[in-house]
Amino acid sequence: MFPMPFEVPNRILLGPGPSMTYPAAMQALATPTIGHLDPSLLALYAEEQTLLRHVFQTENEWTFALSGTGTSGMEAALANLLEPGDPILVAVKGYFGARLAEMSTRLGVQVDRIEKALGEIFSVEEIEAALQRKPFKLLALVHAETSTGAEQLHIAEIAAAAHRHGALLLLDTVTSLGGIPVRIDAWEVDAAYSASQKNLSAPSGLAPITFGPRAREVVEKRKTPVSSFYLDLHQYADYWNGAHAYHHTASASLHFALHAALNILVEEGLESGFTRFRANAERLWVGLEELGAPAFIPPAYRLPPLTTARVPEGVDPHAVRARLLQEHNIEIAAGFGALKDTVWRIGLMGYSSRPENVDLLLSALKSLFR
Amino acid sequence: MFPMPFEVPNRILLGPGPSMTYPAAMQALATPTIGHLDPSLLALYAEEQTLLRHVFQTENEWTFALSGTGTSGMEAALANLLEPGDPILVAVKGYFGARLAEMSTRLGVQVDRIEKALGEIFSVEEIEAALQRKPFKLLALVHAETSTGAEQLHIAEIAAAAHRHGALLLLDTVTSLGGIPVRIDAWEVDAAYSASQKNLSAPSGLAPITFGPRAREVVEKRKTPVSSFYLDLHQYADYWNGAHAYHHTASASLHFALHAALNILVEEGLESGFTRFRANAERLWVGLEELGAPAFIPPAYRLPPLTTARVPEGVDPHAVRARLLQEHNIEIAAGFGALKDTVWRIGLMGYSSRPENVDLLLSALKSLFR
Repeated sequence: MFPMPFEVPNRILLGPGPSMTYPAAMQALATPTIGHLDPSLLALYAEEQTLLRHVFQTENEWTFALSGTGTSGMEAALANLLEPGDPILVAVKGYFGARLAEMSTRLGVQVDRIEKALGEIFSVEEIEAALQRKPFKLLALVHAETSTGAEQLHIAEIAAAAHRHGALLLLDTVTSLGGIPVRIDAWEVDAAYSASQKNLSAPSGLAPITFGPRAREVVEKRKTPVSSFYLDLHQYADYWNGAHAYHHTASASLHFALHAALNILVEEGLESGFTRFRANAERLWVGLEELGAPAFIPPAYRLPPLTTARVPEGVDPHAVRARLLQEHNIEIAAGFGALKDTVWRIGLMGYSSRPENVDLLLSALKSLFR
Repeated sequence: MFPMPFEVPNRILLGPGPSMTYPAAMQALATPTIGHLDPSLLALYAEEQTLLRHVFQTENEWTFALSGTGTSGMEAALANLLEPGDPILVAVKGYFGARLAEMSTRLGVQVDRIEKALGEIFSVEEIEAALQRKPFKLLALVHAETSTGAEQLHIAEIAAAAHRHGALLLLDTVTSLGGIPVRIDAWEVDAAYSASQKNLSAPSGLAPITFGPRAREVVEKRKTPVSSFYLDLHQYADYWNGAHAYHHTASASLHFALHAALNILVEEGLESGFTRFRANAERLWVGLEELGAPAFIPPAYRLPPLTTARVPEGVDPHAVRARLLQEHNIEIAAGFGALKDTVWRIGLMGYSSRPENVDLLLSALKSLFR
């Protein structure tokens, strides 16, 4: 009646995520299921928290992996920090900044936004000027904008500016965590979230999140309950660290895999990984330049995990992308919004970031450009 | 630095979920990752929809598996159907009914509840009387109450009563779907959700959901956006069936596994499965009776997938549960709320529902009761 087994192609994943899952994480994924309150799973959570704190470079007690994708992490952060009517400043420099603003609007808060053209980043002065408009409760900002490949620099200075003006800083680290330095405590970032399937190279489905003391205090002092029961961080804290009270049936499979993936990252050492990822990205950038498809973002804030490459004149970007997938089994992505027809997005994240993948992509592109 | 690999015990899962994952679903889980917009994944979604429609016994176009646990399915249903201030009637006969009411309250709607003592179910007349209080937009009801093991009967009559009074019916099928008959279209249920890790025996992390024409119309005619971006069903419909627009990075791994699990269920045939599950449950009920731990719920509405068994006098329920886990690797659960010290909850769901598991549990209990 229904075709089985389903045939799945073996893709080289060089898009904006998911990255290729580490073989050890795939293996961990297939560990027999245990219950969401099994003492073994609770022990695994404790280790996972230690690993996540290391990767986020934080001591925050409230550090979990939520049962949802990175988008659920974004929503959890906003929904827990904000109450209806609260003022938020969103710095938008691409699709995911715009998504922060849209989610905030849906939550019934007052949204102010400042915007930069696609491919640009904010200066500290621009952020500070906007913070002076009125007293904001929260400043929300994307660290590594997946839609453009730009890294927002000066996070510590931006956090300091936010604090001077009485606002907390929420940082989207979906495409940065594990791929470039993220220093939650040293930079004094109040809250951050990420995703399991980018630089961490676990399967998608979990959203690492961390809330510092100031963010936690805001949650503790709420006058209204968090509108989302599913993403209520207090209940997560109770489930992970407190009385281990039932909240939802977390997927042991996904946690086995994330735990294994985090171990690989931490074993190599964060700094050593960052150096290796950058070297692979530079190999890609040189090759793209030679092919006439140079990186769109200036080197000063170009992201190693996600490169936007300019489509050469006369080349149909969508036909090339389709042929890469069909003929070479390589996935890359189209540009977003206004960049749809002018750039490709090429990811070198976690286990996908390997010299042989770079060479494979460059040689495939070369053959398709002819 | 961090212990690896993490050692995981091989549990016999006889609690209220997760059930044991089908071996074929475990294998599918370890299929190499593909992107969330890969044509192969979109083709898999189409098959998964066909399978889910069959399991829900519906033709509803809006039938998806959401990227979250069953709790996210509950929240998605409420958040999409209700707008702030809307009146909802929640019929509470256990913990999950109470959760429906709590979630609704958080969403800012007007909540009326009717309640039954733990272990009882509603008559159609009781529901109808409550529906006469005022014009409700929605009646929400749990089909198989996981906290008591009671099946709410007369769903078709309750749906008819709701419709007579201008309300839609939302049915929680978390512990019923795939385990006992669920006939969304024949019963005229307007919306329902479930979970992947109970009678479907896939890993947890996906929430099957279905919205019929009336429910969909309510969503289409909303005056306010759904407060949750993550659980916005319109965006799901766009991603699964429409333009395949990016919404979130769904976990291919979990979909591979759910697809494999649904295939197993459909291949056996729903009715044949229900008969087999009931036979295994009856084997358990007879054995429990002999051990002096009879089922708490009367046979007329006792759920084969979830049995509450009375703790024999003089037996410490929590010590027995701990020893079952530690010495026999068998997971069962404690009672909920007021039933915490007086019943155990024993699940026979999907792949966990096998005669050998029943016999193993009964013999372990017998040894522990001595």
